[in-house]
Amino acid sequence: MADLLVVGSVALDSVTTPFGQVTEVLGGSATYFSYAASFFTDVKVVAVVGEDFPKAHLAALKDRGVDLSGLQITHGQTFRWVGEYGFDLNEAKTLDTRLNVFANFRPSLSGAHKKIPFLFLANIDPELQLEVLRQVERPQLVALDTMNFWIEGKRQALLGVLAEVDVLLINDAEARQLAREPNVIKAARAILGMGPRTVVVKRGEYGSLMVSDGSFFFVPAYPMESVLDPTGAGDTFAGGFMGHLAREGRTDLDSVRRAIVFGSVMASFTVEDFSLNRLLHLKADEIERRYASFQDLVRFEI
Amino acid sequence: MADLLVVGSVALDSVTTPFGQVTEVLGGSATYFSYAASFFTDVKVVAVVGEDFPKAHLAALKDRGVDLSGLQITHGQTFRWVGEYGFDLNEAKTLDTRLNVFANFRPSLSGAHKKIPFLFLANIDPELQLEVLRQVERPQLVALDTMNFWIEGKRQALLGVLAEVDVLLINDAEARQLAREPNVIKAARAILGMGPRTVVVKRGEYGSLMVSDGSFFFVPAYPMESVLDPTGAGDTFAGGFMGHLAREGRTDLDSVRRAIVFGSVMASFTVEDFSLNRLLHLKADEIERRYASFQDLVRFEI
Repeated sequence: MADLLVVGSVALDSVTTPFGQVTEVLGGSATYFSYAASFFTDVKVVAVVGEDFPKAHLAALKDRGVDLSGLQITHGQTFRWVGEYGFDLNEAKTLDTRLNVFANFRPSLSGAHKKIPFLFLANIDPELQLEVLRQVERPQLVALDTMNFWIEGKRQALLGVLAEVDVLLINDAEARQLAREPNVIKAARAILGMGPRTVVVKRGEYGSLMVSDGSFFFVPAYPMESVLDPTGAGDTFAGGFMGHLAREGRTDLDSVRRAIVFGSVMASFTVEDFSLNRLLHLKADEIERRYASFQDLVRFEI
Repeated sequence: MADLLVVGSVALDSVTTPFGQVTEVLGGSATYFSYAASFFTDVKVVAVVGEDFPKAHLAALKDRGVDLSGLQITHGQTFRWVGEYGFDLNEAKTLDTRLNVFANFRPSLSGAHKKIPFLFLANIDPELQLEVLRQVERPQLVALDTMNFWIEGKRQALLGVLAEVDVLLINDAEARQLAREPNVIKAARAILGMGPRTVVVKRGEYGSLMVSDGSFFFVPAYPMESVLDPTGAGDTFAGGFMGHLAREGRTDLDSVRRAIVFGSVMASFTVEDFSLNRLLHLKADEIERRYASFQDLVRFEI
């Protein structure tokens, strides 16, 4: 079992979906990621919050064994995000973003953090992602998330980071946008040419696909009759994915396939409720049962 | 190996996609279906064409062993369809439909046809589908296709047929429309309550899913970098699906899973070219190879 580090955001989210509304609840990419990954391995967070950040949220992460020694608590307000979803739950509409203390965030890794074998660069400014990469010493695997905002606004910086990571996790619209190619298979292949050895394309209710060299792998989304809130699904996916790889301590393609299924499992739990509410009472055996049921979803005999 | 009968259309299609254009080429649901199914079992067609229908097209079907004894050739013009696709190849825009001889089509089954064990009711007026059902004697399995036009315009007749069939093959938008339910998983379950034991939902580039009792099964679409023309993909899928079931002579869920993969295989070939052009030079070993590659697309170890 190897250690895992995430650099990303810890936030207070206000979210409206057709099925409910929550105000200033626990959110942020590093939060969802680390909570999900904690079911698989030891995970450390590098992020920043303001002095207003509720202590109970820190306790929830610590209770899962998440290492918060890299979480800066600085003077000011915590990052806030306000968003809503329509009945098509595939895309969030951002109503307000207040970076607050996150505006001046400069990730600084401690000595122990620099030697991390598994590193996840959550969706933040690619210039910050590159700063983190410059600080780590020969990690075994680095994975990256990004979004349309950076693909449009900081393309060159993003291409600079991409050239140095092993895995890109990205949604399908962003994959098309990054590669400037409407066919998602061609887009994923084009992204391989930008640096990553492996591209994982997340397609919401249609599941995800992986392209690596000449190899394709598809996982369906878990069949859900009720999705309350898709916020954090991508980061939870990444947490299950990286958490499992770190647990195995391996990065071969068979491990990556299993990791994608564990990512899908974790995302399927997150969307069952708002914020991290479903994860907060998730049990390890529920994860293993759902993993096994994924095999039944795609099983057929030759 | 059991025999298979399809009742549907034989047509001349004019199709424009972003990748080319063809005029009055071989098309129609029964055509795509029977040609695809001919790779698996003996298949018989009940349909109608006009005197203008090119003899070469009949020869192409006969060369594959398709039984055309149920194909009426009547005075008048063959059914014509004119359609186009944008870069989103998931939905056709119909520019013109000329039913011609199809307007007065009344399927009449011969004695041998009435004893058919496997029956496919392709996408035609549900009142005609019901007329066919009234003529067959205790088939082993009946599958049905339909479309938005009948869901809107002949809902009661369609519900009447649905109550008597075993399998419904339908695309995702139509499944939602039929069930009046936006969640596709809930929609499929609701359709099970209308009669069919099994619902297969086709989702274009996202593959397909099957719901039967409490069991789900997902198959991805074959990863395609180039789709020239999606016309006939659904009917070819149905041809591979029903063809394989008839070949096995079984209708248990494991057979149905294999049949869905064979349907996906056949559809993936059809969209590689216009009309039946790709199928016309398809070899049996190409089908088996692509079937095996589908297992690699979804394989992961527990």
